[in-house]
Amino acid sequence: MKGSERQLIFERWLVDQASRVENKLANLLPTDEDEPGRLHEAMRWAALGGGKRVRACLLFASARACHPAPDVVLDRALDLAASAVELIHAYSLIHDDLPCMDDDDMRRGRAATHIQFGEAMALLAGDAMQPLAFEWMSEMPIAPALTVQATQMLARAIGSKGMAGGQAIDLLSTGVRLNETDLAAMHSKKTGALLGASVQLGAIVAGADSTHREALRRYADALGLAFQVVDDVLDATVSTEKLGKTAGKDQEQSKATYVTLLGLEKAQALALELESVAREAVKSFGDSGRHLADLASYVVQREH
Amino acid sequence: MKGSERQLIFERWLVDQASRVENKLANLLPTDEDEPGRLHEAMRWAALGGGKRVRACLLFASARACHPAPDVVLDRALDLAASAVELIHAYSLIHDDLPCMDDDDMRRGRAATHIQFGEAMALLAGDAMQPLAFEWMSEMPIAPALTVQATQMLARAIGSKGMAGGQAIDLLSTGVRLNETDLAAMHSKKTGALLGASVQLGAIVAGADSTHREALRRYADALGLAFQVVDDVLDATVSTEKLGKTAGKDQEQSKATYVTLLGLEKAQALALELESVAREAVKSFGDSGRHLADLASYVVQREH
Repeated sequence: MKGSERQLIFERWLVDQASRVENKLANLLPTDEDEPGRLHEAMRWAALGGGKRVRACLLFASARACHPAPDVVLDRALDLAASAVELIHAYSLIHDDLPCMDDDDMRRGRAATHIQFGEAMALLAGDAMQPLAFEWMSEMPIAPALTVQATQMLARAIGSKGMAGGQAIDLLSTGVRLNETDLAAMHSKKTGALLGASVQLGAIVAGADSTHREALRRYADALGLAFQVVDDVLDATVSTEKLGKTAGKDQEQSKATYVTLLGLEKAQALALELESVAREAVKSFGDSGRHLADLASYVVQREH
Repeated sequence: MKGSERQLIFERWLVDQASRVENKLANLLPTDEDEPGRLHEAMRWAALGGGKRVRACLLFASARACHPAPDVVLDRALDLAASAVELIHAYSLIHDDLPCMDDDDMRRGRAATHIQFGEAMALLAGDAMQPLAFEWMSEMPIAPALTVQATQMLARAIGSKGMAGGQAIDLLSTGVRLNETDLAAMHSKKTGALLGASVQLGAIVAGADSTHREALRRYADALGLAFQVVDDVLDATVSTEKLGKTAGKDQEQSKATYVTLLGLEKAQALALELESVAREAVKSFGDSGRHLADLASYVVQREH
């Protein structure tokens, strides 16, 4: 297969997975006809119509690598798990955007949830989305022991030593310029933990063995870091062209980024290096791991 | 046994259970030596040193009713489940007190979490407590199928159709005077759902059968409602003596309470009626259910 053809197939796969999880979320989320309608509207506003669904794609790709054969029951479980991680991501964005946090009015090109529904309703929507994700996980048609393992993995990834902890470190570092080690530690919690959990959840639900799980851990570590380095590179590039809001804010507060720490060229080189570490980590999966490998390149090569 | 002696034994049991869960929470919660220390401090501030631990007592009493024989493994599981429900309750209080919600500066006689740690850190502390509760549940040494059932029960109780939903209905009813049916529906979600889940979790963890579970459902429904009616009675009594903050606020906004809807005497009579419904519901447990019966009376007879 030629490279361009393979690329085309991958891009179609990405679009398919994104709409797969989007449809599932739309079906699973309560509607405004369920009491309290306004709260459910806010939850749907925040969770639907959103983004590239990288976390769901990672989960699907990881499950495919560990369990390549078609399996309709497994697919139902993966739908629930993928919806759960996307719901968690969406909740974190609602709370991030609140006035006491980043105070952002816009999200994905439209009003942030607290602008559209008010601050209190946005807070409650996020609060209600966390347990809903755990509820969906509990409904997966897999062995209960795997559900417990998956639940524990997700809970740890998003708690005080994972995603929420990363947010807190970020908050506490305002006005402090982190060094490279601390910056990596902060991002590995703030963004890396949920990305890594998405990869691991796909593997757990698919019943992967510990060798596969370990390879995926190395993959996810490299990918999570790459994700952030590329974010910083993109922000820096945008901010020299036109002052984007995020880039502008980071510069104002003179926050450390991979670009301010390493310079643009070295940051770009680091991203490419992490891309090959990630690709290398999933080589043992052979052809079944190709979506994972392509996702690593996709994360590094993306332009926004 | 004389009534007064029995009462004394019950009161000692209450104190013992409260300190049992308090100690467990203190051991389970990360400390300020774990990164990020400030976040963990905020979580401990909110979760420790708190209150009567009614939810934990209900959970312990319900497990005792369903499984009266001593069992150290079961006790370890119950410790985790009781800590989880108390952690959820504490998170809900942090978020309730935030400026965009009730805007309360004080909680349990000291500064609310957002006053002590700032709004953003309080938000994150609450956000991190939810998954920690699910993490603890996942660590219970019981059959995985029971853990999944317990997780699902807790998740549903605190989501958009439970506790968080009740908060939203309360928020949306500002300036609207609810009738008795809507008021009961709001409270059954806002307060009743977690109280009921505490009772059911004790039963699930103890491996109760469906007959016991059904009796406990009737018990919890009556108790949850009684809890709120008594709250309203106490608020009304306090507000005629000295204008307490909550009572004052409710009157200002002319919010419906059981006292404004029914009058003080009928509200008091309703509370007593619910007490006997609750006691009646757990009669079939015989002596093993005595803590549950006494808890119903305790909730109705309490003076603050």
